[in-house]
Amino acid sequence: MNAYPSKLVERAVEQLSTLPGIGRKTALRLALHLLSRPKLDTHTFAHALTEMRDGIIYCRQCHNISDTELCSICASPSRDTSTICVVQHVGDVLAIENTGQYRGVYHVLGGVISPIDGIGPEELLIDELIERVRSGTVKEVILALGTTMEGDTTNFFLYRRLQDFSIKVSVIARGIAIGDEIEYTDEVTLGRSILTRTDFDQSIRF
Amino acid sequence: MNAYPSKLVERAVEQLSTLPGIGRKTALRLALHLLSRPKLDTHTFAHALTEMRDGIIYCRQCHNISDTELCSICASPSRDTSTICVVQHVGDVLAIENTGQYRGVYHVLGGVISPIDGIGPEELLIDELIERVRSGTVKEVILALGTTMEGDTTNFFLYRRLQDFSIKVSVIARGIAIGDEIEYTDEVTLGRSILTRTDFDQSIRF
Ligand SMILES: [Zn+2]
Ligand SMILES: [Zn+2]
Repeated sequence: MNAYPSKLVERAVEQLSTLPGIGRKTALRLALHLLSRPKLDTHTFAHALTEMRDGIIYCRQCHNISDTELCSICASPSRDTSTICVVQHVGDVLAIENTGQYRGVYHVLGGVISPIDGIGPEELLIDELIERVRSGTVKEVILALGTTMEGDTTNFFLYRRLQDFSIKVSVIARGIAIGDEIEYTDEVTLGRSILTRTDFDQSIRF
Repeated sequence: MNAYPSKLVERAVEQLSTLPGIGRKTALRLALHLLSRPKLDTHTFAHALTEMRDGIIYCRQCHNISDTELCSICASPSRDTSTICVVQHVGDVLAIENTGQYRGVYHVLGGVISPIDGIGPEELLIDELIERVRSGTVKEVILALGTTMEGDTTNFFLYRRLQDFSIKVSVIARGIAIGDEIEYTDEVTLGRSILTRTDFDQSIRF
């Protein structure tokens, strides 16, 4: 017999399990949870998701998600617009914002160059970044892409294109994560962190 | 500044994190995932949940969730209607069905007696169970409630009320979970499993 007592539950479980990290077992638990709450709750829940999906727009400058044409970061007078941090995804902006360590602006690339996935430079918002640098008062571009081969390829591609301008191009530091044990750090990271070691009196300033 | 670049995302995250086991970090990941997929996907997703919540009905006999007045288990001619397995929640029915070991029918109680939570016998579908036993051809009631104090209390309450009828009342076996080590089993379970030990030749039949 059918594992679900109801087609309606089965369809809800199917949909819930399309979310990343949600298996069918968890999806069922979530569906039963919604059933245990008032109908209005599920309506509010569903409405919040469709409203978000339909209403979201992307900042015309940095391509971060936004409720307005220019996002709250780009529009803020307290941000340093001469520094642009280049990231792959919107989630990266949020992660960096949560550190509270960055006062510049962003540029969301939309991914990294990956020939194997059919993603060339033209699929990404690279021209838009170059235009921002060309038209403006940018002094530094910080590359904050993933530490994968594709990230490195994209870093190199961007670096070459940005050399036409007299700006600083930097890349976020790679190294041992705070709190990690040296002996359990993978050898690539460890080797690289030795080669790119920092002056001690510079490192203690933070 | 606001941790979210968009009120729409913030509201979606708020709603997603009302689900059990979904913290704000996971909720944000799920929201961004929905944003990365076509709009139609979110509509299908939201629709499946509201359809389920609005359309679900409960079997008039066993109170399992159902798409029809009588659920597919109660309506099946291949199920043994003389055996009723009493469970707390709909999820328990699914869990037992998944074992493939049970061919009887169910009765979903809706919880267990818990004075501390203000749940007395009248809050549960106990009278409905008694009616089923009274009116019918029931030969055995299997109590499959949680192994908590409240579960035990409810078992005892049900047992007393069912004594008016000449039926068998049984309780699912408690003991060492299959695959568990004896030395790591809690002492209450271990003690009980020694007291309720089974004949070896009976146990090897399974
Ligand atoms: Zn922006
Ligand atoms: Zn039923």
